[in-house]
Amino acid sequence: MENRVCKLFNIKYPIIQGGMVWCSGWKLASAVSNNGGLGLIGAGSMHPDNLLHHIRSCKEATKNPFGVNVPLLYPQIDEIMEIILKERVPIVFTSAGSPKKWTQILKKEGVIVAHVVSSTLFAKKCEEAGVDAVVAEGFEAGGHNGREETTTFCLIPQVKRAISIPLIAAGGISSRESYLASFVLGADGVQIGTRFALCKESSAHELFKERCRSLPEGDTRLLLKKIGPTRMVYNHFCEQVQQAEDMGASADALRELLSKGRSKKGIFEGDMIEGQLEIGQIASMVTKEERVKDIFEDLCR
Amino acid sequence: MENRVCKLFNIKYPIIQGGMVWCSGWKLASAVSNNGGLGLIGAGSMHPDNLLHHIRSCKEATKNPFGVNVPLLYPQIDEIMEIILKERVPIVFTSAGSPKKWTQILKKEGVIVAHVVSSTLFAKKCEEAGVDAVVAEGFEAGGHNGREETTTFCLIPQVKRAISIPLIAAGGISSRESYLASFVLGADGVQIGTRFALCKESSAHELFKERCRSLPEGDTRLLLKKIGPTRMVYNHFCEQVQQAEDMGASADALRELLSKGRSKKGIFEGDMIEGQLEIGQIASMVTKEERVKDIFEDLCR
Repeated sequence: MENRVCKLFNIKYPIIQGGMVWCSGWKLASAVSNNGGLGLIGAGSMHPDNLLHHIRSCKEATKNPFGVNVPLLYPQIDEIMEIILKERVPIVFTSAGSPKKWTQILKKEGVIVAHVVSSTLFAKKCEEAGVDAVVAEGFEAGGHNGREETTTFCLIPQVKRAISIPLIAAGGISSRESYLASFVLGADGVQIGTRFALCKESSAHELFKERCRSLPEGDTRLLLKKIGPTRMVYNHFCEQVQQAEDMGASADALRELLSKGRSKKGIFEGDMIEGQLEIGQIASMVTKEERVKDIFEDLCR
Repeated sequence: MENRVCKLFNIKYPIIQGGMVWCSGWKLASAVSNNGGLGLIGAGSMHPDNLLHHIRSCKEATKNPFGVNVPLLYPQIDEIMEIILKERVPIVFTSAGSPKKWTQILKKEGVIVAHVVSSTLFAKKCEEAGVDAVVAEGFEAGGHNGREETTTFCLIPQVKRAISIPLIAAGGISSRESYLASFVLGADGVQIGTRFALCKESSAHELFKERCRSLPEGDTRLLLKKIGPTRMVYNHFCEQVQQAEDMGASADALRELLSKGRSKKGIFEGDMIEGQLEIGQIASMVTKEERVKDIFEDLCR
């Protein structure tokens, strides 16, 4: 029986590499696609002209399908979508916003659309909006996260019972056990973020990768819930946020503390003290420096 | 190949019913044991004389092995343990405290000991302390919870790699999918709380059971982190706690708000407004009124 996610995206393995800020440029995305998965360019940390460069480079680096992840709350969303359509990117993963408007526009142009959700309620809305697949992401995932805090283990069986389109599990998936367990829970495929963020082809700073690969279990926190829950490494910046929140800091105070460019500073520029180091709980299981090829060999052996 | 958890406890199915405050008296524990799992009496909400009554009633109601769950921080711990040893309870699950002291004492008397942890670090310490099995419980679990917030999906594969004694997964396990997925993740057995808390044989108040069985997904919260993280239904009391915490309430202020007997009020007396309604995230998947027998038939079919 053919896997529905493989069929939908025309890929060999039902493994999607999450589109992550400052990690997933054309190098990572094309490596994943060349290894039989679906690579995603993360538009969330790119200016439109930079995205255009990454799309064109990715096309040169792989003949296989690849996609772009687009947070719908992005200020330059129209420009981003224009580039994606003009460049005939075959697949778009949307997140952080309603899929209603853009799904119709993208699908009219022949683009395959998946949307990322953190609840069964929004998974159903995605199906109604006509998306081709849903990514259901649990509390353990890195970076921006759902308000419901529902874990992957609880979320996947519930979403599975509610929708009939292909379901992609995300959050906490890294080892072969968790890859296989995702299918047992009801998923048709998986989206892996953390393990790919920390591999050689990721564009993250080496210091960020090293820090995350030596992270003790339990050393990430989901904070900033008043402005948008985000999972990050418990470093100096994170400790500051935690302390502010424990004292009852307002959304405005947290925005000021966060300031601009905090995740770029951490993930891309390698500031381990003042940077916001977005990563998933499962980072504590990623300890080796790997290539994309090694990850596929481990998961699909 | 014989299952290690079944062999250890001499039970038919590797299913343990969590020892839960105000839910798991002799009726629930004996029903679980009679159906081939391991029933646990929850000592956490019992005065010593009440525990004695439940142990004796359980012995009369089942010829199969059963156990008692003991939070080690319980003020009357010496008295509780004396009763357990005198009554020759064959199995003890300890939690909330170090297993060092009591494991030795219990094992000397021939008791089989399991300890509940929320991290790999403490799982290793359990093995060193000589416990017979470890329960690793994820963030999604109801009631008292770990500070690390590691989810079941992330926790089980990591604990599995760190210990060699039998591993019991807990947190978010309710459906057949999650039951099977637990084994794929590396567990030898499962501990199920929420689904048993809401069945007919549970001693919880009917209003509590009804409320939890109609709970929307995402409608529990892990709060009270400053005094001891606890997962509960988002009711009026929970909203008050959330608001206090958002304003930066101190541990003392939270203790005052919590006051005494709050979970008894909610779970046992059925006060849905002012009670603390401890339950796991997976409650949203439990919608039917079931008997213990129905649960075993569903999971083990």
